[in-house]
Amino acid sequence: MTSGEDLHPLDAATGLISLGDGYEGRTSDAYWNLVGPFGGVTAAALLRAVLDSEGRRGDPAAITVNFCAPIAKGAFEIAAHSVRTNRTTQHWTVTLKQNEAVAATASVITAARPETWQCQLLIAPTAPPPDTLKSFAAGLSGWTDRYDFRFVEGEPELKAAPSDKALETKSVLWVADRPARKVDFISLCAMSDCFFARIFHARGALVPFGTVTMSTYFHIDASDLAAEEPAPLLGVADAAIFTRGFSNERAELWSAGGRLLATNSQLVYYRD
Amino acid sequence: MTSGEDLHPLDAATGLISLGDGYEGRTSDAYWNLVGPFGGVTAAALLRAVLDSEGRRGDPAAITVNFCAPIAKGAFEIAAHSVRTNRTTQHWTVTLKQNEAVAATASVITAARPETWQCQLLIAPTAPPPDTLKSFAAGLSGWTDRYDFRFVEGEPELKAAPSDKALETKSVLWVADRPARKVDFISLCAMSDCFFARIFHARGALVPFGTVTMSTYFHIDASDLAAEEPAPLLGVADAAIFTRGFSNERAELWSAGGRLLATNSQLVYYRD
Repeated sequence: MTSGEDLHPLDAATGLISLGDGYEGRTSDAYWNLVGPFGGVTAAALLRAVLDSEGRRGDPAAITVNFCAPIAKGAFEIAAHSVRTNRTTQHWTVTLKQNEAVAATASVITAARPETWQCQLLIAPTAPPPDTLKSFAAGLSGWTDRYDFRFVEGEPELKAAPSDKALETKSVLWVADRPARKVDFISLCAMSDCFFARIFHARGALVPFGTVTMSTYFHIDASDLAAEEPAPLLGVADAAIFTRGFSNERAELWSAGGRLLATNSQLVYYRD
Repeated sequence: MTSGEDLHPLDAATGLISLGDGYEGRTSDAYWNLVGPFGGVTAAALLRAVLDSEGRRGDPAAITVNFCAPIAKGAFEIAAHSVRTNRTTQHWTVTLKQNEAVAATASVITAARPETWQCQLLIAPTAPPPDTLKSFAAGLSGWTDRYDFRFVEGEPELKAAPSDKALETKSVLWVADRPARKVDFISLCAMSDCFFARIFHARGALVPFGTVTMSTYFHIDASDLAAEEPAPLLGVADAAIFTRGFSNERAELWSAGGRLLATNSQLVYYRD
């Protein structure tokens, strides 16, 4: 873990100390959520354990994170193991524990991406430039202050009582780290989870919720990502269904130039 | 593992013998794919290990399967462990080995689904009744014969040479086990992977491919699923992007009555 005044809060929050057979990390108040760390930062710390591991081949192609239990403020341990190395892909299993109890598990696939035929079918939504839009003031402390959100559509309007009729669930927004930070796999991984839970949008109110599992697929490698324009990225988030306590959400992150960088799907627990 | 003439091939292919601290299964020629078993059946066997485990609480809400290496014909071992049990959710990690080497890993979340506010935002496509459509003859042996596919749109037309221009990638089709079988979590899990790789549709040709990781979310519990009409289910599959050897695919499975039963997202490796 590097320290210093210039360390970006995201790097401080996801920094790991090698323990030889694993890593130690520590939760960050800068990315605190209501009852635990912002899930995107936990995902990024799990990814960092793989990126920091000796013998890692290629760049992240996919990460699935299962949020098993709330993470308390303080230290946690991460163990990352490569379970299979193929010619172009490598499979990792990652476990985050606090006080010997599993709080999160992850699988990560890294890949040396070959040159192939390619085609992007999904098209980025059109959006006015970010500097023509207001920065969203969430009015919450913690992780939401670590992002500059500029809504193109679907800005949440939270009321005291949840709506019985489903309100609009789709959001399109520009998003950037605050303070600004280059986009790499750590920030892209965290950002793939930065969209407010769709249940807030559907009901127009804060209700109890938490991501149970999420998968982020990366559609770019490290060298192409480093060559991309800096953030903000354009994000799209929506939900397919809310049923019996769980909702199915999806999100996309696009470069300003319209390149699809990452997609996320997640199952979110909710109550009420 | 139950045996007998009446055992459905899917139950034979996913049947497990308890070894005390794990399970033994065996690949099935009836679900063979080009270089290994049909991935949906491997996923279903991994899910069955959890369903068969003592102490399992609730019904499957999510399964992520990472296909680490080809599975050879013959026996394999599955170990399933619950890593965390919460009030309404339980987290499992599952590993499939052959000759001591990891061939697949999975995480499964089971849940006792609460009664909550609910809303299905995604709407099933309209489709003519299945009996007015031709059954698709894949002309391949193995797993494709185990499904009755009836395409509403996007039936694949495979030529010898891949198309440079991307062809239509979306398919809408009725799908049922062949022979008929009731829809439960085992068949729903397998069926969530039954869509032909979108790269075949995009290029109009068979090219090397394989699912690397996939996540299926279930939007129904066991009692509601048992009360649903029998198959065929209506399936929708599409892709978002093909880039540098990997494509991002999504699929949905709907009841004939328009209820969203399961969603799948996957990252598929392809060449050429």
